[in-house]
Amino acid sequence: MKPLGPIPAGFEALDGELAISGRKASSLVEEAGRTPLFVYSKQMIAERVASLRAAMPARLKINYAIKANSFAPLLEHVAGLVDGLDIASGGELEMVQAASVGGDRVSFAGPGKRDEELEAAIAAGVTLNLESENEAQRALAIAERLGKAPRLAIRVNPDFELKGSGMKMGGGAKPFGVDAERVPALMREIVDAGCEWRGLHIFTGSQALDADALIETQANTLDLAHRMVSEAGMSLPKLNMGGGFGIPYFSGDTPLDIEKMGAALGDKLETLPDTLADAELFIELGRYIVGEAGVYLTRIIDRKESHGETYLVTDGGLHHQLAASGNFGTVVRRNYPLAIASHFGAEPAEVASVVGCLCTPLDRLADKANLPRAEVGDIVAVFCAGAYGASASPSAFLGQGPAEEMLV
Amino acid sequence: MKPLGPIPAGFEALDGELAISGRKASSLVEEAGRTPLFVYSKQMIAERVASLRAAMPARLKINYAIKANSFAPLLEHVAGLVDGLDIASGGELEMVQAASVGGDRVSFAGPGKRDEELEAAIAAGVTLNLESENEAQRALAIAERLGKAPRLAIRVNPDFELKGSGMKMGGGAKPFGVDAERVPALMREIVDAGCEWRGLHIFTGSQALDADALIETQANTLDLAHRMVSEAGMSLPKLNMGGGFGIPYFSGDTPLDIEKMGAALGDKLETLPDTLADAELFIELGRYIVGEAGVYLTRIIDRKESHGETYLVTDGGLHHQLAASGNFGTVVRRNYPLAIASHFGAEPAEVASVVGCLCTPLDRLADKANLPRAEVGDIVAVFCAGAYGASASPSAFLGQGPAEEMLV
Repeated sequence: MKPLGPIPAGFEALDGELAISGRKASSLVEEAGRTPLFVYSKQMIAERVASLRAAMPARLKINYAIKANSFAPLLEHVAGLVDGLDIASGGELEMVQAASVGGDRVSFAGPGKRDEELEAAIAAGVTLNLESENEAQRALAIAERLGKAPRLAIRVNPDFELKGSGMKMGGGAKPFGVDAERVPALMREIVDAGCEWRGLHIFTGSQALDADALIETQANTLDLAHRMVSEAGMSLPKLNMGGGFGIPYFSGDTPLDIEKMGAALGDKLETLPDTLADAELFIELGRYIVGEAGVYLTRIIDRKESHGETYLVTDGGLHHQLAASGNFGTVVRRNYPLAIASHFGAEPAEVASVVGCLCTPLDRLADKANLPRAEVGDIVAVFCAGAYGASASPSAFLGQGPAEEMLV
Repeated sequence: MKPLGPIPAGFEALDGELAISGRKASSLVEEAGRTPLFVYSKQMIAERVASLRAAMPARLKINYAIKANSFAPLLEHVAGLVDGLDIASGGELEMVQAASVGGDRVSFAGPGKRDEELEAAIAAGVTLNLESENEAQRALAIAERLGKAPRLAIRVNPDFELKGSGMKMGGGAKPFGVDAERVPALMREIVDAGCEWRGLHIFTGSQALDADALIETQANTLDLAHRMVSEAGMSLPKLNMGGGFGIPYFSGDTPLDIEKMGAALGDKLETLPDTLADAELFIELGRYIVGEAGVYLTRIIDRKESHGETYLVTDGGLHHQLAASGNFGTVVRRNYPLAIASHFGAEPAEVASVVGCLCTPLDRLADKANLPRAEVGDIVAVFCAGAYGASASPSAFLGQGPAEEMLV
């Protein structure tokens, strides 16, 4: 038997079934017309943003990184809750424009921005987080051609990392941003060239659950911003302090202590140097805002035995849930939180593995999990499916196609 | 410096550029209109099938598993070269129908076939490789409703495995097929129920480069088929012996010795028991047929330094090349074969990492590779991109969308 990850708080049983935003899984599937189905809870997302705002200093603004989930109704919902949106491609620019979000609330990071993406972003008044000196030159040239002052910030490759981060994006050689020691010179150069100077973006990593590590990183981020701005002799209108707030996926993971983080950041902000006194401060979160608010529902098509082991074969799989299957940058596969939605809260009665419908041994949603007895037709729920699920999975694999998505 | 995988035979330089089917990379990109671009060589695929037929006993038929690559022009091309096609979903059934391939040349395996997929396959005269007793009952019930005798084969979970296989699909408890000891009873049951009996499907693993391991597995497969058929007291019209033929991806990998395999299989076929004397024998290959015939071309957008390391940032990435990035069921990331297509065959001049345009450290196409000097605008080629590239990657990730594809 292998443990399942912890089911996020806020999910309850209604008539013995999993309910999401007060609606039973079977009813949601009926409305969608088919499985597999991603369901995202408006209420849980709103509560998450509210709890963040309550915990963090009032001065701190919150951006949503839409790469986590850009399903159009969800994006519109989140856009109404947060202060700004972070995008990572021209495709994502079109999505925020479709959601009627103005360019002044949007910033664009990403190490490989094409000329046409730079042009569309400058034309829309989006802030570009420059990833290199070369990109700065390209952006300035395109802006000149457009006759428009570009809104430019610089993404910094910091000289420290976020400890315990699932993905390190700072510390040492990296393809992201400009090495910290070269940033002051680039700041002066782009300001001299006539850009609308928007400040710095310092992103160190993601998916951290250790509040102390994040507190240290935020303090280091503010200190680094101060040093660079001082050296350049410039002001700092905005500082995107990155994100890195993780959510528990696996057995033994515990939720991030955001109250502790908020208190520490509040203390730090009280002693900020003059260089940062007037800066708008942002954090940029994707997974933390939407990850736990999403559930993937998939129906059991077959229940079979092989050499004494039980397999529940579903109509979903890694084509929608690559990370949950353990195949997206994972070294050791561990089980995500998962339940039999049709018998939610029932006592475990057997050990079973839940697999997808793909013809590959990689397609496993739960390995040897302790579950209530489930039959063909029952619905399985995979939790923590709100971020990097639908958007980060190979939906065309084996001719399957995308899942349904609903915001309720 | 980390080694690159071996570039498949058959690629040459033309005016210092990589040529595919005699056409320069830059010309292919111009015709496609943009990068990133997958290019598949008709000629290399045809040569691969011809060399297989030359090496293998004449009696052996060759099926193509379309999950490896179902790009419509490629699928039509391959369908004209092989004896049959293997599909894994209703979506893939639609693809083979669009390629005008008759149902009698198609078989359908997959552990989670939905009722509507079974119905479409039965109506089209496709052979179902049954994965469980439950699926057998569902297929028979649907066929009765349709008033049609279903073409049924049984997928066997064998009691042995393919040694050295990249992905094991037999040996011990598995979600695929019916445990060997239960197969004879199921054979009798479905034949008694009036199906058109099509035989057995025994698939043990994939991506093996060791000819001896495959020889042993093929012998075991024939022996197991004989035992099951003898026990059931039935004939065997067809036997799908699976595939498992690998291609070299990584430094140190060597091509599979198919001549040795063909000779050994020829010997084995001369002493087949009566039970298998009249069976049509198939192997089922995907990656081996198309994998090395595909190249992924992506343009360098930025060339940057960070703490003394050089990064070539491309407009492609893991959203089209998940496996090459090392994130698809890989434990230790190793470099695929990759080259600067714009300077193909030139001497290495520097160590550089090639990354994609996605804002994640997972997006790396080559780590610290020894490459000729490349500049912004140059084209990078990732080899072994013909199988499980476009179809098995999360193309919507970060709002990017699919790559172009061409068959030349």
